[in-house]
Amino acid sequence: MRFQHHIFVCENVRPEDDPKGCCSAKGSAEIRAAMKREIKQRGLRGVVRANQSGCLDACEFGPSMVIYPEGIWYGGVTPEDVPEIMESHIIGGQPVERLRIKNPKYQ
Amino acid sequence: MRFQHHIFVCENVRPEDDPKGCCSAKGSAEIRAAMKREIKQRGLRGVVRANQSGCLDACEFGPSMVIYPEGIWYGGVTPEDVPEIMESHIIGGQPVERLRIKNPKYQ
Repeated sequence: MRFQHHIFVCENVRPEDDPKGCCSAKGSAEIRAAMKREIKQRGLRGVVRANQSGCLDACEFGPSMVIYPEGIWYGGVTPEDVPEIMESHIIGGQPVERLRIKNPKYQ
Repeated sequence: MRFQHHIFVCENVRPEDDPKGCCSAKGSAEIRAAMKREIKQRGLRGVVRANQSGCLDACEFGPSMVIYPEGIWYGGVTPEDVPEIMESHIIGGQPVERLRIKNPKYQ
């Protein structure tokens, strides 16, 4: 695998009056910035990548992200959650259960 | 897995004078549009997703894409290659070897 973990953070932008809302308006750029800082601080550049993505089709759970190859989906993430995701999931291999999207389709 | 295959097509945009070039200038939007048409025509919406992504850090091989969870990277793709990717890889489970990024890091 090119990256041990490839994180895609939805940064899709919709108009303000769109009933779906959008992950950008819920702060996804700050989440990705926090991810990138953690990756750099932990010496994981080139091993783990936090990638911007378009709409992941999980708008109602946003801000949304998915981590491959394991295919773990997180929703409602805040920048404050990022260290726990890094420590538990990326370093420790244990997904952060409380942040996983609970809808069965995303399990 | 939420999607049997989750395709991320780099649509990053760099300034015209950037020596790295960018996948957008190499036609990645057309590639993703072709992917989306194929997915729809084959009744695979909700099962296979062609997602826009930011820079995948494979600029020199662009237009670049990666398909998860299998982690197969393609480079130098054209819209004309899309039916073969769909038929061989997505439907048949056989990656299109001639389009894979040959650099060992991406194997």
